[in-house]
Amino acid sequence: MTSYPNASGIILALDCIIFGFDGKDIKLLLIKRNFEPEMGKWSLMGGFLEPQENLEDGASRILHDLTGLKNIYAEQLGVYGNVGRDPVARTVSVVFFALINIDDQDKDAVRNHNASWIALDKLPSLIFDHNDMVGQAIEHLRYKAAMHPIGFELLAEQFTIPQLQKLYEAIYNTPIDRRNFSRKLLSTGLLIDTGLKNSHSATKKATLYKLDTVRYKKKFNSFWNFMPESRESLMSN
Amino acid sequence: MTSYPNASGIILALDCIIFGFDGKDIKLLLIKRNFEPEMGKWSLMGGFLEPQENLEDGASRILHDLTGLKNIYAEQLGVYGNVGRDPVARTVSVVFFALINIDDQDKDAVRNHNASWIALDKLPSLIFDHNDMVGQAIEHLRYKAAMHPIGFELLAEQFTIPQLQKLYEAIYNTPIDRRNFSRKLLSTGLLIDTGLKNSHSATKKATLYKLDTVRYKKKFNSFWNFMPESRESLMSN
Repeated sequence: MTSYPNASGIILALDCIIFGFDGKDIKLLLIKRNFEPEMGKWSLMGGFLEPQENLEDGASRILHDLTGLKNIYAEQLGVYGNVGRDPVARTVSVVFFALINIDDQDKDAVRNHNASWIALDKLPSLIFDHNDMVGQAIEHLRYKAAMHPIGFELLAEQFTIPQLQKLYEAIYNTPIDRRNFSRKLLSTGLLIDTGLKNSHSATKKATLYKLDTVRYKKKFNSFWNFMPESRESLMSN
Repeated sequence: MTSYPNASGIILALDCIIFGFDGKDIKLLLIKRNFEPEMGKWSLMGGFLEPQENLEDGASRILHDLTGLKNIYAEQLGVYGNVGRDPVARTVSVVFFALINIDDQDKDAVRNHNASWIALDKLPSLIFDHNDMVGQAIEHLRYKAAMHPIGFELLAEQFTIPQLQKLYEAIYNTPIDRRNFSRKLLSTGLLIDTGLKNSHSATKKATLYKLDTVRYKKKFNSFWNFMPESRESLMSN
């Protein structure tokens, strides 16, 4: 047996939503599409899955091609496959959600793709259903940031509380009370004081923290607090 | 232009992971595969995407076919597309995660598919990468149950605290302290006392609660507590 007679072939695309943070705004890395249809329109960076390629490898290939980076934080966001979403062919797109520290990018790679970082409040109209994908990604970013220290992927390894607050204010597009933010964040026990100060700070030097990844993994599944704190055995599933 | 010359066709499958709760165990609805390859082996319930069908409609079709139910709680879990995962053809599978109240099923539909509810600790070896899918689904169930009242999809609309505790003990496969569970859960303010008692209770009659869905939506994004409680405007993105 070499085929499934009842199955019809489709084309599988991979689209990457790449968020970065420049210290003030959350931005998205977008390109002008360079083939038909919709050539010249704003688009997510994407490509087709190659015959001998796993999905995650395809996403890594596309992300590396655009940013020059390897080992980018990326996860599947969802699959978009509505009939007619692409006028050319039945194309189903697996969308990846990626976060990078904007300072790490290879500027030449970004320039070669004629790509641009665009702030969320200035997003243009994108091809096909890409605006829907971006909307889901923003919601996912806000969701994860509310629950997890995922935002730390957008910062350098060491960061100050004011930097983290600016990140959260950008993610939620709203001012946050400084003392409440600091108190709640430190009470999680997830931040390690590095003993260093931020030498770039314009005003008084702020303490540099880093994420306690071991403690974070232990606390991961215990947010409702009726579970024992250490659920490492569960996480191995 | 009518094609993408650089794209190669693949087959898109939909696989459904259906969890149910019988008051004691979390169970999975599995079938014996009735076509080659791997005919007769245990498998998730799946099918191929039809040419004129959206992904979610395809999942609903498969779920309805197996359980007789419409409007089942279902969400995309992930996409499995490793090269060689299906020996017949390059088949990429979109996996859906579904929760049902086991009492709602159409027993005839389940019987017609020769399907069986199997407890998580008695899972058989499944075809292809279906065990990996199930592993991810169990982790996702535990994750969501720790953060959200998603487990309520597995119960009747009205439930007692002891029923909810049995559900959580089954999800995490661990005993939970009764008073701590009750106190933490009630402190979320997410449960509404219906004023009714469970007439089926063997011992003393326990209060029936239901989920406060309005309050749940308001609290959804505020778990870290430094955000204002009502973030409805954010959720509309």
